[in-house]
Amino acid sequence: MVARSSEFSMIARFFAPLAGEGAYGLTDDAATVRVPAGHELVVTADTVIEGVHFLPNDRPQAVAQKALRVNLSDLAAKGAAPMGYLLALSLGRKQGDAWLREFAHGLALDQKTFGILLIGGDTTATPGPLTITITAFGAVRRGRMIRRAGAKEGDLIFVSGTVGDAGAGLEVLRYKHPRLAAKHRAALTARYRTPTPRLALGRALQGIATAAIDVSDGLIADLGHIAENAKGGAFVIDAARIPLSPAFRAAHGTSDAAIARAAISGDDYEIAFTARPSARARVLAAAKRARTPVTEIGHVEEGRGVYLMGSKGRALPTGRGGFTHF
Amino acid sequence: MVARSSEFSMIARFFAPLAGEGAYGLTDDAATVRVPAGHELVVTADTVIEGVHFLPNDRPQAVAQKALRVNLSDLAAKGAAPMGYLLALSLGRKQGDAWLREFAHGLALDQKTFGILLIGGDTTATPGPLTITITAFGAVRRGRMIRRAGAKEGDLIFVSGTVGDAGAGLEVLRYKHPRLAAKHRAALTARYRTPTPRLALGRALQGIATAAIDVSDGLIADLGHIAENAKGGAFVIDAARIPLSPAFRAAHGTSDAAIARAAISGDDYEIAFTARPSARARVLAAAKRARTPVTEIGHVEEGRGVYLMGSKGRALPTGRGGFTHF
Repeated sequence: MVARSSEFSMIARFFAPLAGEGAYGLTDDAATVRVPAGHELVVTADTVIEGVHFLPNDRPQAVAQKALRVNLSDLAAKGAAPMGYLLALSLGRKQGDAWLREFAHGLALDQKTFGILLIGGDTTATPGPLTITITAFGAVRRGRMIRRAGAKEGDLIFVSGTVGDAGAGLEVLRYKHPRLAAKHRAALTARYRTPTPRLALGRALQGIATAAIDVSDGLIADLGHIAENAKGGAFVIDAARIPLSPAFRAAHGTSDAAIARAAISGDDYEIAFTARPSARARVLAAAKRARTPVTEIGHVEEGRGVYLMGSKGRALPTGRGGFTHF
Repeated sequence: MVARSSEFSMIARFFAPLAGEGAYGLTDDAATVRVPAGHELVVTADTVIEGVHFLPNDRPQAVAQKALRVNLSDLAAKGAAPMGYLLALSLGRKQGDAWLREFAHGLALDQKTFGILLIGGDTTATPGPLTITITAFGAVRRGRMIRRAGAKEGDLIFVSGTVGDAGAGLEVLRYKHPRLAAKHRAALTARYRTPTPRLALGRALQGIATAAIDVSDGLIADLGHIAENAKGGAFVIDAARIPLSPAFRAAHGTSDAAIARAAISGDDYEIAFTARPSARARVLAAAKRARTPVTEIGHVEEGRGVYLMGSKGRALPTGRGGFTHF
């Protein structure tokens, strides 16, 4: 049994220093949130579980950052500015005070980076794996949230950053790619462990993107979610334009099969989005303003479905298109 | 392995019918919440875990209702009117479609009873026990949330309903009290399985209660939380005035030891609160308006701590005062 503070001293020692306005120092049953005038609140909740969403030997700091960032990524895809979050922490038998200290430090670092504060939550002990549910709150001007629905025939399709890295990073953590250069291994595992929520880009795309989603299940699967919520349209992706990092190329090359692997690989937390062709220049300006690389990878035409077109002009097999939990 | 729908068809079949405004039919990454003018949002999150907060053989409908109600109870204690909730559901291996149907039915029933709608969440699969985190949203007029802090010397102490029932109900479920009458057994186990959030009372106490908390850890422990957040004062409870149900009396009697047991027993989800002596008539009128029994059980005097005074005028031992997770 590891050394662990009582519930109340744990909150006082590790979490109260992270608390923001409306949290009442984490001494109340609930928190209050004041939404700026003319804005509405955007809320999202995501759970991460040891052994499912992160590895049992991941550092507590990285676990904290991943738990927070997957939620911030949802706010990013909606164009929302982060405000606060609730932390529901179910601790397993191995998480003691030393673990909690490092976990809280990870949250503190990210609170500074992303401008968000802890406002409440719940701590419980579980006989199962460490389980963390974060509920994140953001604000958007009323009616300006970027929706999944809204893509139309004729739209262009974009994605930020590079895809496939987190999946390759998980492979590295599972002892694949043993001959890959150390710098590439580090780059890939960092993408898996601590994704970067594209908050500045999401906000810059308000009023420009017709639909957006963060790439968690995989590029093809997540574009599928946009496609399902569109009135119609076939989403045609040009495999040759899918952005791959040097590390991913070093691990997998650039064959059609490698690209298809990147396109169905999850956990990258980039933003995939659509925009009218007339908005192309505004998209590129928004990307520049947000200092975030964005690549045009395809378009929406008449039809239904998501197609990844390979170098021979034929659609590549993408199976179920990405990760599903069940 | 039980039969279980894919993540997306699960959401469409069981949860989309529960979705309210701002949920976008549960097809988006996030939900939006519009707070009524002049109000602020009250947010709270609580986790319930199979084998910790409910029993592995509890019916899915009751599990759903308990998960929701423990959160509604926090809103009740703050005087907030429920608006919506996020459901983060981590399913174990045993929860299939049949389980999900009954679970969703339990949520549907409570949504009608308490006027709250599902607005989003997350579904994951866990190798551990079924784990449910609900984040509930409510509204109060700006600045009117009833806080834990605020009790003062001279205040009277009140509690709603009866205490000790949920703890005795758990004993019944653990095969104690075998000779207790069936109606009492049913009454006690119902208190454990499906607590009643005191929403009407909480709202009626806005501007009247100086501090409030819901009784989840136990009456003495939870009054302790109010005491810790007060500027000072000894909370003196008259054991003879602690409200006990006929079922609890039948199970445990009314000795000092029985009362002390009720006072340190958790999970009743009553509201314990304080008010100025001059507000006594307003408290009773609020209780009547809310159709909720309320009993005056003590007062705050000079000093520090929480004291349960027995029939011989001596403080009864209450140990650590209630349930702690760690």
